[in-house]
Amino acid sequence: QIDPDRLHRRIAALAEVGAIEGGGCARLALTDADRAGRDLVCGWMRELGLAVTVDAIGNVVGVRAGRVDGPPVMTGSHIDTVRTGGRYDGNYGVLAGLEVVAALNDAGVTTEHPLAVAFFTNEEGARFAPDMMGSLVYTGVLALDEALAVQGIDGATVGGELARIGYAGPAPVPGAVPRAFVELHVEQGPVLDREGTEIGVVESVQGISWTEIDIRGTSNHAGTTPMSLRRDAGWAAGSIIAFVRELAQELGGDQVATVGRIEFFPNLVNVVPNRAVLTVDLRNTDEARLRLAEARLAAHLDALRDAEKVDIATRKLARFAPVPFAPEMTARIERHARAQGLSTRRMPSGAGHDAQMLAAVCPTAMIFVPSVDGISHNVREYTRPHHIEAGARVLLAVLGELAGA
Amino acid sequence: QIDPDRLHRRIAALAEVGAIEGGGCARLALTDADRAGRDLVCGWMRELGLAVTVDAIGNVVGVRAGRVDGPPVMTGSHIDTVRTGGRYDGNYGVLAGLEVVAALNDAGVTTEHPLAVAFFTNEEGARFAPDMMGSLVYTGVLALDEALAVQGIDGATVGGELARIGYAGPAPVPGAVPRAFVELHVEQGPVLDREGTEIGVVESVQGISWTEIDIRGTSNHAGTTPMSLRRDAGWAAGSIIAFVRELAQELGGDQVATVGRIEFFPNLVNVVPNRAVLTVDLRNTDEARLRLAEARLAAHLDALRDAEKVDIATRKLARFAPVPFAPEMTARIERHARAQGLSTRRMPSGAGHDAQMLAAVCPTAMIFVPSVDGISHNVREYTRPHHIEAGARVLLAVLGELAGA
Ligand SMILES: NC(=O)NCCC(=O)O
Ligand SMILES: NC(=O)NCCC(=O)O
Repeated sequence: QIDPDRLHRRIAALAEVGAIEGGGCARLALTDADRAGRDLVCGWMRELGLAVTVDAIGNVVGVRAGRVDGPPVMTGSHIDTVRTGGRYDGNYGVLAGLEVVAALNDAGVTTEHPLAVAFFTNEEGARFAPDMMGSLVYTGVLALDEALAVQGIDGATVGGELARIGYAGPAPVPGAVPRAFVELHVEQGPVLDREGTEIGVVESVQGISWTEIDIRGTSNHAGTTPMSLRRDAGWAAGSIIAFVRELAQELGGDQVATVGRIEFFPNLVNVVPNRAVLTVDLRNTDEARLRLAEARLAAHLDALRDAEKVDIATRKLARFAPVPFAPEMTARIERHARAQGLSTRRMPSGAGHDAQMLAAVCPTAMIFVPSVDGISHNVREYTRPHHIEAGARVLLAVLGELAGA
Repeated sequence: QIDPDRLHRRIAALAEVGAIEGGGCARLALTDADRAGRDLVCGWMRELGLAVTVDAIGNVVGVRAGRVDGPPVMTGSHIDTVRTGGRYDGNYGVLAGLEVVAALNDAGVTTEHPLAVAFFTNEEGARFAPDMMGSLVYTGVLALDEALAVQGIDGATVGGELARIGYAGPAPVPGAVPRAFVELHVEQGPVLDREGTEIGVVESVQGISWTEIDIRGTSNHAGTTPMSLRRDAGWAAGSIIAFVRELAQELGGDQVATVGRIEFFPNLVNVVPNRAVLTVDLRNTDEARLRLAEARLAAHLDALRDAEKVDIATRKLARFAPVPFAPEMTARIERHARAQGLSTRRMPSGAGHDAQMLAAVCPTAMIFVPSVDGISHNVREYTRPHHIEAGARVLLAVLGELAGA
């Protein structure tokens, strides 16, 4: 049996680490705040009797032994957050995993197969790109060296920061392949909340395309330079912001497009910017339509090069095709949720998740619970307590069945 | 007689202070680099025998005594620069003023009236708004208290920084009203260079409107938030950038519009920004058309409030109506330039200048020399040596006549 109070207490305690006004968290990956969060969760893992290992990219896996050796059934998520993060995104899945372990401990149950609870490094990708970095390295899709060399928005490297916070562990990567992987997460979007559905059965994760665009123009005087003579890197950036919104509206469906980060140089009121750097986040559930969106953006950049005579360089920060989850896993989640009297809906995930990387190596699926008003990456992110508990109960049932309780 | 080498040497020596790659300078107002520049120029003033005073807003005035007491004929400009500044903007006018003094010293000439060379604090406005701050306080248009309290882009205040660099002087403000004021400056725009004209006789300065726009939306997840549910402060900022360019093109004539500074919050790739702050610089030689541009911008902000449900606050950073210069002064400049065999053109100034503030209290005008390719606020700002010398010779003749040589 899940102990709701224990679960809520752990969520609240982890939310104290890097707490910011409004009830949210700022624990960017591999910062001091992330280290403090890691230390707290590792302590809980050890208290629960898990064998804790840290791998070379800082992923932490806590294993509860089964009756037989061999690969564990794994659950988990991440505990890093964005700078305006909520307390549920990622944390919920990890702490619900610990609650499943605690419930099995309480009941004195030993499962057939080992059970593992993991949290992966830098899932958010807000400080270091790409997102899902830890699970990408865990599954062997991204080389360790490449990941360690990544420079963050503040100039620090993944390798340097891992060493600094003491989470460059000895366990090798790629890591051992689990029997199966199940990730419980808040939806972060509005669908379940609007419909009043209790459990989302996640069938897929949409495609993600992150591009950093670096525009070079000519700095000049804002008062003396005729409009026709400008090579305005800032205007080009503004034109991209306006363009991607129109693109999303025109492509319609579930196409989304966001410019979340921007910087101008020299960034002064009366100087035409000579450089602007911005990011574009494009997502679509359909790979062909995501490619179309990327091609349209590239064509817009070409038009800008011609029209404003600016130089534009692009760098892919992340690119993931849509990922389908294993039908036998989604069916299993749906069956257990319904058996508990919960309403369900099959749906894609709008956010990227570590599960989409694990899906490449083992049967994988995700469980969603509703996010009030679909708000996430915001301190006002909120999921009602009975939904938090319902998700944990479904997770317990699914993991119990997979591990052979 | 002007000594061209001495003038070029001083320009080169001042350009060493805060030198940046490409031959330019970064001496934002009241920084350590500005202090070093001030110290150098004050030293030269004293070497030339000028009586140097520093006033409460940090303006420095060096006075050469005349045969009679009373108000001096004044020349001058500024020595602060933007972050990507050239070596001529402002500096040239101050150092040409010193060269006029040196030439009079060489010739053993005492003028009827005193002659003053001034440099005014924070003309650029790049760190602290408004621009022309020192001359605004000197002429009593801006109250000292208000100026001292201004916070810069880095959070520091004018008063704090003046005290820190030791340039909060004892001379009172408003300062003594000069008999007349003449400012020599590089054009910073392309007109004279394109035409091959040697001297610009500046009849007016165009109107300047600086607005800081602070947009509040809702941070949310870039992957899960449908376009229709967004309150995207970053998109609203992009839409303003695109709008002001269209506005300038539509209003035509000499209307210019620039977004030079921007900041997003939390400024992360996968977070819809909950806040964006940007500046809009609008200029027009015609006050009615500048008002029209401001009204059109305000209407666009209203439309954004409706469409994106964002909150938008605006703050005027600077607002100056177009300033006409004294016809007797422009006629005098034109006459002396032509007498020296130089080609001239009457023209407005696209940039703001200290002279436009002095124009409120005494007969004032400006002399322009060509800027190669009209480039300014850029390390590649350049004026050919023979134009530098021609401008200084015209200044000598005009000041000599005004002061009674
Ligand atoms: N779950 C989550 O917010 N992941 C962050 C990666 C992304 O989707 O941008
Ligand atoms: N001369 C000059 O660049 N002044 C700066 C003020 C402005 O025009 O923006």
